[in-house]
Amino acid sequence: MQSFDLSRRLTAEALGTGFLVAAVVGSGIMAEKLSGGNDAIALLCNTIPTGAVLFVIITVFISVSGAHFNPAVSFVMMLRGELTLAVMAGYIAAQIVGGCLGTLAAHLMFDLPTIQISLHARNGPPQWFAEFVATFGLLMTILGCVRFNKIDAIAPAVGLYITSAYWFTASTSFANPAVTIARSLSDTFSGIAPGDVPAFVAAQLLGAAAAAYLLAWLLRGRDASAQEPAGNP
Amino acid sequence: MQSFDLSRRLTAEALGTGFLVAAVVGSGIMAEKLSGGNDAIALLCNTIPTGAVLFVIITVFISVSGAHFNPAVSFVMMLRGELTLAVMAGYIAAQIVGGCLGTLAAHLMFDLPTIQISLHARNGPPQWFAEFVATFGLLMTILGCVRFNKIDAIAPAVGLYITSAYWFTASTSFANPAVTIARSLSDTFSGIAPGDVPAFVAAQLLGAAAAAYLLAWLLRGRDASAQEPAGNP
Amino acid sequence: MQSFDLSRRLTAEALGTGFLVAAVVGSGIMAEKLSGGNDAIALLCNTIPTGAVLFVIITVFISVSGAHFNPAVSFVMMLRGELTLAVMAGYIAAQIVGGCLGTLAAHLMFDLPTIQISLHARNGPPQWFAEFVATFGLLMTILGCVRFNKIDAIAPAVGLYITSAYWFTASTSFANPAVTIARSLSDTFSGIAPGDVPAFVAAQLLGAAAAAYLLAWLLRGRDASAQEPAGNP
Amino acid sequence: MQSFDLSRRLTAEALGTGFLVAAVVGSGIMAEKLSGGNDAIALLCNTIPTGAVLFVIITVFISVSGAHFNPAVSFVMMLRGELTLAVMAGYIAAQIVGGCLGTLAAHLMFDLPTIQISLHARNGPPQWFAEFVATFGLLMTILGCVRFNKIDAIAPAVGLYITSAYWFTASTSFANPAVTIARSLSDTFSGIAPGDVPAFVAAQLLGAAAAAYLLAWLLRGRDASAQEPAGNP
Repeated sequence: MQSFDLSRRLTAEALGTGFLVAAVVGSGIMAEKLSGGNDAIALLCNTIPTGAVLFVIITVFISVSGAHFNPAVSFVMMLRGELTLAVMAGYIAAQIVGGCLGTLAAHLMFDLPTIQISLHARNGPPQWFAEFVATFGLLMTILGCVRFNKIDAIAPAVGLYITSAYWFTASTSFANPAVTIARSLSDTFSGIAPGDVPAFVAAQLLGAAAAAYLLAWLLRGRDASAQEPAGNP
Repeated sequence: MQSFDLSRRLTAEALGTGFLVAAVVGSGIMAEKLSGGNDAIALLCNTIPTGAVLFVIITVFISVSGAHFNPAVSFVMMLRGELTLAVMAGYIAAQIVGGCLGTLAAHLMFDLPTIQISLHARNGPPQWFAEFVATFGLLMTILGCVRFNKIDAIAPAVGLYITSAYWFTASTSFANPAVTIARSLSDTFSGIAPGDVPAFVAAQLLGAAAAAYLLAWLLRGRDASAQEPAGNP
Repeated sequence: MQSFDLSRRLTAEALGTGFLVAAVVGSGIMAEKLSGGNDAIALLCNTIPTGAVLFVIITVFISVSGAHFNPAVSFVMMLRGELTLAVMAGYIAAQIVGGCLGTLAAHLMFDLPTIQISLHARNGPPQWFAEFVATFGLLMTILGCVRFNKIDAIAPAVGLYITSAYWFTASTSFANPAVTIARSLSDTFSGIAPGDVPAFVAAQLLGAAAAAYLLAWLLRGRDASAQEPAGNP
Repeated sequence: MQSFDLSRRLTAEALGTGFLVAAVVGSGIMAEKLSGGNDAIALLCNTIPTGAVLFVIITVFISVSGAHFNPAVSFVMMLRGELTLAVMAGYIAAQIVGGCLGTLAAHLMFDLPTIQISLHARNGPPQWFAEFVATFGLLMTILGCVRFNKIDAIAPAVGLYITSAYWFTASTSFANPAVTIARSLSDTFSGIAPGDVPAFVAAQLLGAAAAAYLLAWLLRGRDASAQEPAGNP
């Protein structure tokens, strides 16, 4: 049963994705500017704000729209029958529009040219495999929490998953088609060249679908009650 | 129904804001002193203590005074009819007094001149827009948690929001008129020149009011029950 | 009462351990590559992703398999009578296989030779004592949470324990035989020479057994109810 | 009503304080060794493990002994009538013994001389005022959580308070007489010269007593129910 009408749900998706992208792009700009050329420090100062804002926007909006902020998530929810195709399309449009506005807002705040095109090449099979793994893990995280009714755990789990995946996935875990598109509009630390976007998005959707498929089998227990861990009575 | 009398509520606001400002200013001093000129490290070591202390003071005082520690928050609570104008004025006075004492305490602990005037220029439309965004997001965070009765989530959400906003808002997210005033009294890492305070405060109050207005529409559901995310049954 | 059949439990153990090792090895590669020779920054950027992913995989899989991801934990659960010897053997095999696949996945993502043998020497009594302490503390953490039915606290407690132990145990706290074996297959930041593995594993199992023994006595109260702290009424 | 007998409670206090000090001293050694002379990085890598281990040991032992691990806390609990003088003396002895063993364990793990005397001077009124503030804030944190029955919040609140106070208190927030004594036995990053210990301990006990006194007034509401924030209905 839906509690919020579609206009509010789409606004929540746009607003949340906007803050997510503003955090990714903005903290990337700040981090690169201040880090004196040490890229580990720059990436750490890009990671922590990203993980932190995910906790916030999921906590705030999960009861409004489900807090997807990510076409790969909306796609899986459609596969699971929880969104119609039309609502999924609306969600994805709102996410992309909100994400691009987030990039613009970051540029305005940092006094940079509003519209940019990234020249940051990110491609090749290892990067694509990394995006597959990154998005697989993200959906594994979400579906695991949903399966066991750990709704309050989604915000910290997703925030911490992305915090981790920024470092272990080689591509720094975009894991989100709307964010990928929005990041192509910023020629800064977190950008991606527009020509490299389609392969990233394809890898992300494949990873999401693979997770949906595997987890549908893995998490189908016989008589599972939510909070009792097997083997830890 | 209020459980604590006004003297206790004002003391809680002053004490909490004092610890908040002491953490902001004190960790800024320590971070700058130790970071060997790498400003990303300095800002990270200013960010983490600030986010952490917000969790603490909100957890401790939310049941006493609501744990505003911020005139922009008290202003919105007055707009929502939850504080009278007179109580709001008392809250704001307590926050400013407590915040300034926090600056003095930080200077005493670090053996610096007690009273200082910051020379740190922070101005221009990008900075003001950043403060608008920062405070908009802060109120979005708080109002979202309040709307869905996630009272225990306010402390981590606000702590993590500020952790993120320090990096993505260009102005390092003051987002708080009392803290802005208190920081004008410290010519250290986190200071702001007194002449730049009014525009910051104006941008903060505009951002807070905009959030109150938009969220009042966005979070008005039809029959929302707190913890059921739409689309994640 | 078990809710998931053995094939799902073993898959969960393999998948979770795979993500754990991918995070350890992958973030180690990324961190070393970007940190410009500052090993504290590299280790910090190895620590945070490891702690974060532990929160995630425990949250997701604890209700499926108990979320051991660690032969030392499965060993103690067998000692406590919660796993049969045969199931323990299955768990350990799944953890080792999953862990090694995690190493391979990290190498693939970072475009490195898939199969490697670490040359990183880690040995000597101080390192072994460190592994004893590290694993003792890990089991202390888990058994304490289990004892007081703080099931939701296991994920943050284990994540934060390892975050801490990476720094205070000299060996950077492997504390996990499956992860130790998997890390011997990577000649990168987090590797360990294969010849040094057996002594590490022995120290880990001794630490785990010592914790099981001491905690069995320490946590046996007279009439303890889970959440009432003694001395803090 | 106490659930655990005194021998178990004292063991829990000694074991927990031992892990706390091992984390403080051990991570200080590791951080200094790896940080290439950047003291902000060293202190950050000392801070994070300390805050993290506090979450762990409080979560594990709060139901056994109250998880004080700190004579200043036991002193205030005695003032509040929750510990007899004799039990307080036992707690403090266990904390000091456990803390000193933690220092020894750190030295053994890092292959350093087991017994050392710190030469690190830490004194003067600003440092003493910093210890007063640090311990005041620590007790404010604990008493606030206890007052509103937020027992599960004590572990994250104390961990995050110390994370913050390491940076904003100039003395790096020892805030614990047993830890102060134990740190005098290590001539490493986190040490303190034995001659500077008494003034630190005095400042800590004064800060703790001041917090107990002020909070006893501040947190005495008329008809407070734990989770309803005033002003946020």
